[in-house]
Amino acid sequence: MSTQVDDLRWMQATIALAARSPALAAPNPCVGCIVVKDGVAIGRGVTAKGGRPHAEAMALEQAGEAARGATVYVTLEPCAHKSNRGPACSDLLSAAQPERVVIALTDPDPRTAGSGTERMRAAGIAVAEGVAEEAAAYQLAGYLSQQKRGRPHIMLKLATSLDGQIAMTDGTSQWITGEASRAHAHGERARFEAILVGRETLRQDTPRLDVRLPGLEERSPERIVLSRSPAPQGWTGITAPEAVHDLEAQSLMIEGGAGAAAAFLRTDLVDELLLYRAPVLIGEGRTALGDIGLTNLSDAHGQWRRIETRHLGNDQMERYLRTRAA
Amino acid sequence: MSTQVDDLRWMQATIALAARSPALAAPNPCVGCIVVKDGVAIGRGVTAKGGRPHAEAMALEQAGEAARGATVYVTLEPCAHKSNRGPACSDLLSAAQPERVVIALTDPDPRTAGSGTERMRAAGIAVAEGVAEEAAAYQLAGYLSQQKRGRPHIMLKLATSLDGQIAMTDGTSQWITGEASRAHAHGERARFEAILVGRETLRQDTPRLDVRLPGLEERSPERIVLSRSPAPQGWTGITAPEAVHDLEAQSLMIEGGAGAAAAFLRTDLVDELLLYRAPVLIGEGRTALGDIGLTNLSDAHGQWRRIETRHLGNDQMERYLRTRAA
Repeated sequence: MSTQVDDLRWMQATIALAARSPALAAPNPCVGCIVVKDGVAIGRGVTAKGGRPHAEAMALEQAGEAARGATVYVTLEPCAHKSNRGPACSDLLSAAQPERVVIALTDPDPRTAGSGTERMRAAGIAVAEGVAEEAAAYQLAGYLSQQKRGRPHIMLKLATSLDGQIAMTDGTSQWITGEASRAHAHGERARFEAILVGRETLRQDTPRLDVRLPGLEERSPERIVLSRSPAPQGWTGITAPEAVHDLEAQSLMIEGGAGAAAAFLRTDLVDELLLYRAPVLIGEGRTALGDIGLTNLSDAHGQWRRIETRHLGNDQMERYLRTRAA
Repeated sequence: MSTQVDDLRWMQATIALAARSPALAAPNPCVGCIVVKDGVAIGRGVTAKGGRPHAEAMALEQAGEAARGATVYVTLEPCAHKSNRGPACSDLLSAAQPERVVIALTDPDPRTAGSGTERMRAAGIAVAEGVAEEAAAYQLAGYLSQQKRGRPHIMLKLATSLDGQIAMTDGTSQWITGEASRAHAHGERARFEAILVGRETLRQDTPRLDVRLPGLEERSPERIVLSRSPAPQGWTGITAPEAVHDLEAQSLMIEGGAGAAAAFLRTDLVDELLLYRAPVLIGEGRTALGDIGLTNLSDAHGQWRRIETRHLGNDQMERYLRTRAA
């Protein structure tokens, strides 16, 4: 295999390693690192719960002396800033003297932002950047969103019939989608630090919004309600979508209802759409969204890019990302 | 290759051959036939415009003497009834003496209905039935629907946003879907003998409902409006969905709007759904369907089976069949 193909495959494995460890490193990014020598992984690390140790420190410790001359894959540029919780990863790597360091994304944190890479190059290490950048950006979307936009990465989940209804006229929505979709949605919840519902959904459904998957019960996210009324115990209240700029969470999932969804779309605060569609027709019912402020149909185009399609039982799941200038 | 795999592949080719010749054999079924010897197609036929000659007669004529000992693939059981327009195909085949005849579907026409097969077996020919039956039933859906239910096969086409809207609140719907979807929809029209719209759609859009594809301009279907008012020139009027039982067309496509679509769904007269979905959100707009008479959500399940998914530019196309007892 060419170095390029090798790099891409190892980076994909490194991203997958990081993706297994959801929503626990915050406010740090959940970084993955694999040290590879002679085609074999000799060290692996993911940012630990609470942010330390960093992925590179763990992977280098596992690899030990063998890291010398190896290739190190890391999803985010190794940090250049020392802290009282540990040394800078770019210093650790410079000392370990791998032959190459392959990086997916430059760290937008101004304390690093290229200086991690510079420091390693100054130590005589070859550094490649931008490998599997898009996949890493998706895995680190929450961290990047807080760094660049000062708010969580926000995903809107919708579960609809083929004709786009989320409930019968009387509000009945249990169940439109099947078991496989619902299990998948619980898995998605485990990836998110915070979940939001609208006032009406809270009032009518008193949703638990926990993660009902074996082994993931502890991953239940912070619960947020969009409402002008005081939030009930165990819930955080925000009065407008823009208040997401005050949240520390890296990732926020909007569970419904139509009003809350529309409010976030109207303010262009949705970064990702997760659609579950069941092979049923409802006809007259409740639509997924209210007024999202669209006045010209042509403006609706070019905003969403499909990145995933999956069959879940009889349902279909689709994932879209908001196209934004970088 | 095993005979079974061979049979399946040749039958799929035979069905594809018939599918290229849409909506011109009516009221006869559009049958395909391929004569195969030593792995090579030596004769091909599709029911001609107006119904004669039959596919088997054409394919056997092409094959000539070489048909003796060959395998004949035919999508529908060869007919057992003579007519003043030509001999019975089961007699033609008995005389040609192929080694085997492979059939996808038994002909429900009571004049044949198994007696074509019997006659060939009596002539010493091995007959296999039920090969690629489902695909052939889809290709012959219109003929089978007229035979079994006394009405056309009815397909409802919907073009929606991701949130299930077919237009903005003011009725603007040009364009939700992209060019590739629209071209595909024109191709679908060419497969249908008749197209129906509701009264409001006729009034507001004065749709042409022709086939805007090079080389297919002549394939424009019969235009039907669901309305109590007199139909305009060039249009056939029906006052209720049940009137489709009076139509001779084998296939009917419902183009809209929401009221007509709902009327046909309410009376369970939709056999196929063709959905085009564009990666746009509309929010408050016009929904695809009105009241379809659903009172229990659980009744909505198990009615539709997805048989095709396709990317068309940025859009997605999906095709569903109504699940019905045979």
